[in-house]
Amino acid sequence: MDLEERLKETAGSVGPLNQAAMEQADQYQQKLAKPPGSLGKLEDIAVRLSGITGKLRNEIQKRRIIVLCADNGVLAEGVACAPASVTAAQAVNMTKGLTGMSSLARGFDCEVVVADMGIACDYDCPEIRNFSLGKGTRNLAVEPAMTREQALTAINTGIQLAEEAFRDHVDIIGVGEMGIGNTTTSSAVLAALTGSAAEEVTGRGGGLSDEGFARKKAVIREALKTRKPDPEDPVDVLSKVGGFDLAAMCGVYIGAARDRIPVVIDGFISVVAALCAARICPEAKSYMFPSHASFEKGYAIAAEELGLSPWFLLDMRLGEGSGCPLAFEIVRAACVITNGMATFDGASINDTYLDEIREKDEWQ
Amino acid sequence: MDLEERLKETAGSVGPLNQAAMEQADQYQQKLAKPPGSLGKLEDIAVRLSGITGKLRNEIQKRRIIVLCADNGVLAEGVACAPASVTAAQAVNMTKGLTGMSSLARGFDCEVVVADMGIACDYDCPEIRNFSLGKGTRNLAVEPAMTREQALTAINTGIQLAEEAFRDHVDIIGVGEMGIGNTTTSSAVLAALTGSAAEEVTGRGGGLSDEGFARKKAVIREALKTRKPDPEDPVDVLSKVGGFDLAAMCGVYIGAARDRIPVVIDGFISVVAALCAARICPEAKSYMFPSHASFEKGYAIAAEELGLSPWFLLDMRLGEGSGCPLAFEIVRAACVITNGMATFDGASINDTYLDEIREKDEWQ
Repeated sequence: MDLEERLKETAGSVGPLNQAAMEQADQYQQKLAKPPGSLGKLEDIAVRLSGITGKLRNEIQKRRIIVLCADNGVLAEGVACAPASVTAAQAVNMTKGLTGMSSLARGFDCEVVVADMGIACDYDCPEIRNFSLGKGTRNLAVEPAMTREQALTAINTGIQLAEEAFRDHVDIIGVGEMGIGNTTTSSAVLAALTGSAAEEVTGRGGGLSDEGFARKKAVIREALKTRKPDPEDPVDVLSKVGGFDLAAMCGVYIGAARDRIPVVIDGFISVVAALCAARICPEAKSYMFPSHASFEKGYAIAAEELGLSPWFLLDMRLGEGSGCPLAFEIVRAACVITNGMATFDGASINDTYLDEIREKDEWQ
Repeated sequence: MDLEERLKETAGSVGPLNQAAMEQADQYQQKLAKPPGSLGKLEDIAVRLSGITGKLRNEIQKRRIIVLCADNGVLAEGVACAPASVTAAQAVNMTKGLTGMSSLARGFDCEVVVADMGIACDYDCPEIRNFSLGKGTRNLAVEPAMTREQALTAINTGIQLAEEAFRDHVDIIGVGEMGIGNTTTSSAVLAALTGSAAEEVTGRGGGLSDEGFARKKAVIREALKTRKPDPEDPVDVLSKVGGFDLAAMCGVYIGAARDRIPVVIDGFISVVAALCAARICPEAKSYMFPSHASFEKGYAIAAEELGLSPWFLLDMRLGEGSGCPLAFEIVRAACVITNGMATFDGASINDTYLDEIREKDEWQ
């Protein structure tokens, strides 16, 4: 089967949430000894998890962050201040638990899978999974970043990595990345998909000079005009102005949804890949959970379209998937509290009060 | 020594943060292999922890939530829809890990100390620590909620509970509460301390009727006018319009600061108690950390005065200390990432790049 058909088939096999399980979970939340709704988003998370797994009680034990690494030819335009060598160096450091994400992963009991989707520089590290599609993409300012076949291959690789997580009984997946220049590709993809102007989706980062920032926006604006990515065709967008990392991340989201595994979005790059997945397969949205709010201004645009609002605000802008370990803990909190709390029947709370509390919404 | 002097002495013995340790910690953050500032608030947390403990590397292992429980005579005014019996029932349930906070505590490896500061109804539960000052306070709408001596005793009990945590080598404390009617006392205390109008600090909760809400505000407004709490004297405010729970919580914050233990604020009631502590002892603020944003409208007023902005937004409004377990994980994340990440020297990142990244603030 060709790549195009394979993706179509996978996307088509993503099932809806289990409505019966969600109704049961929602009713159970009403029975817990607390003012209705007082667990806020933890209740929503518990209910959606039930819709994903079909079970009332869920557990988050085996957690995996899948980190897609690749370089970007657009670096030649001077859109980032770090050289491509950092991608390789940090990919290696991730396998050793030395980066921000991977040290958190170690401390919070998460597995890390580091995948080379197209790292430019050489490295010696057998722990990095090799799916390289080349030494970085081509320069999207000059030509399409990759062929359509490369984009499809990267997406299918992401789907395979999710399938592998499913076979390994992973309870929750996080999607991370490493790739110097990938806020540029992400902004370009987001602008192409949403019709937003480059200005609306491109961030300055913390300290890009006025000149560098202007250049970054001009490169994106020009690439959109020249490459003409088709907003109705996310694969076309990814291949013309995206990156190998973005395409593979998009695949992880689709694969996680197909295999009914909850999947956590990290920051800006991660949310743009999630949006690509949702455009290819709208039902995939049901399996996505947010983590923290990114500082990059495009984050909110993509998150809003996905119907997600971030859970925590720590002003982090490290990428890599560094928001995932804490987000996993929040999902785990939703499970722990649902599984552990008494119901009103078991809480020895005065019966006459029960009828009132179920009607009203005020406790203290 | 009388209670008044004892409190004065304890508050006076709260030391400042260790500036040398903080400077060292801040310099160390600059050496970690990441764009400067990209760990956001996790960097601030790590630096402040160093200021508290005097150590560069910290660990969050032993965690304890101290839950102060008490009833409020103001319940007679119909300011809450739950009866006082719920305070006793839930205090007992907390010792069994059946409530929202305590099931989270169990799942996130936190100890829970439940203290009876003045629960109105009888219960049979030896696990609850008995510091009862009476079967609830008096009705603040009619007379002062408690005597000044009772307020001082409650504060000193809180200080003792923090001291006990210190002796038990607790690394971080969370401050929770259980007490039907204690959003009314908290709103009254906050209004008295800040000079805010009852309208500005009183929440409707999720479902208090228009009538109940109007009554709650009227009770607070009237009590402030009749009781005339002195805004310059937090002990006077606590005794006239506060509660035994609030006063003891205030003491835990002061004691934690005296014993140099980081202490996490939960929701609205918890933050009002923290503000009382900060008014008695401004330096105590240095030891306080936020957790989630409360829905109660007064939360933001108190948090702003304390210079704290919440870390997560889960729309929870359960109280009890339920925000603490996840906040502890965030503090632990700050430790784990600081202790685990490579420095630039160890990250094999290109040397010429080092100088750039240290100057600039853009990575990807």
